[in-house]
This record gives sequence, C-alpha cells and structure tokens, in this order.
Amino acid sequence: MATALDVFGDKWTLLLIRDMGIFGRTRNKEFQDGKEGIPTNILANRLKSLQEHGLVQRKPYQNNPPRFEYHLTPAGKELIPIVRSMARWSADHVAGIRIPKRTQK
Amino acid sequence: MATALDVFGDKWTLLLIRDMGIFGRTRNKEFQDGKEGIPTNILANRLKSLQEHGLVQRKPYQNNPPRFEYHLTPAGKELIPIVRSMARWSADHVAGIRIPKRTQK
Repeated sequence: MATALDVFGDKWTLLLIRDMGIFGRTRNKEFQDGKEGIPTNILANRLKSLQEHGLVQRKPYQNNPPRFEYHLTPAGKELIPIVRSMARWSADHVAGIRIPKRTQK
Repeated sequence: MATALDVFGDKWTLLLIRDMGIFGRTRNKEFQDGKEGIPTNILANRLKSLQEHGLVQRKPYQNNPPRFEYHLTPAGKELIPIVRSMARWSADHVAGIRIPKRTQK
C-alpha cells in the first residue's frame, strides 16, 4: 500500500485525478483554471509522475505547436470511486475542519 | 475538497488512519513498528495534525511517565472505507507500478 501511496497519496495528484475523472478536464489550461490554483511546476511534475506510473496517458491534439491532452488509463479510472468518496467525506466534514476566517469588523 | 486533502491527502497520514482503523494500532511504538518505517518526527507531526483536525483523539493509558494512545474519532472512522479501497487498488495494481528491483547475478 505504501508504494501505491507514493504514486497517488498526494493532494495535487488526487485533485488531478478528480479533474480528469469527475470534471472531464484534459488540458493544461483546464487544470490550471481549477479553483485550487495548482502551481505550474507542480502540475507538470504530477502529470509526468502519473504517466510514468501508468495512471494517465498523454495524447496530442494539435501539432504546431505541439499540445497534449491527458486522460486516465483504466488503472487510473479505478481510482475515481475513491476520489468520489473523498469528495463526499469532505462535503460532510469540511465545515468542521476549515480554519475559521477572522470576522470582519 | 482541497481543504480536506490538506488534512489527509498525505501518504503518512493515510497509513496512520489505516494503522488505527484497520490494524487496530493505537500506540507510538506500534505505529513505528509498521513495515513502512515512519520517521519519528513525521509520526509526531501527523498525530498532532490529526488531533487538531478532529480525526484522532488522544487518551492517557499510563501516568508515570505519561503515555498516550490514539484512536480515530467518528469523523476519522468514516475514512476507513476510503483507505480500504486504496489498499484494494494497491493490491490490484502495485505490481504494475512498483519500480523493478535490479536482478541479482
């Protein structure tokens, strides 16, 4: 299990799996436009790692200049129910764990 | 969801939830004896964070010197099915994602 967690036991990786698997996002710009604001270098790093571990496949959608879109592989898609459960847990509990904002005076 | 992932979207945190929720481990020594070999400072840090976010509760089991054991709260227990699904995914896919060991000659 620890080996698997080295692959996807990371906040940004899990958000990217959600982006692809639940929100249908496939392109760099779509990932960057997410409200979490993934930093560009982290995005590139996590997409590379997901491909190296066979969870994501890259396909060209334009040649000049070359541009790619990213899709979950079958192994990657099997993580969708897990990410969905996390989102559900988050919706149930996030109020309790959110750091309270300072009240405006 | 990102806020929730700040709490548990981390390899060591997820392993600790597994230790408590599935393996029934409650004490520092039991967490440290896990085969993943969690570093002591990370263990202390993650147990503290889990308590601060209401996922884990600390109870004294000895007074002199003071010693504590750690249990999942109801909110923490709701993560057990998620961790179980991760373990199942890991068992199905870990062969494909493990970095191959160099063959002995």
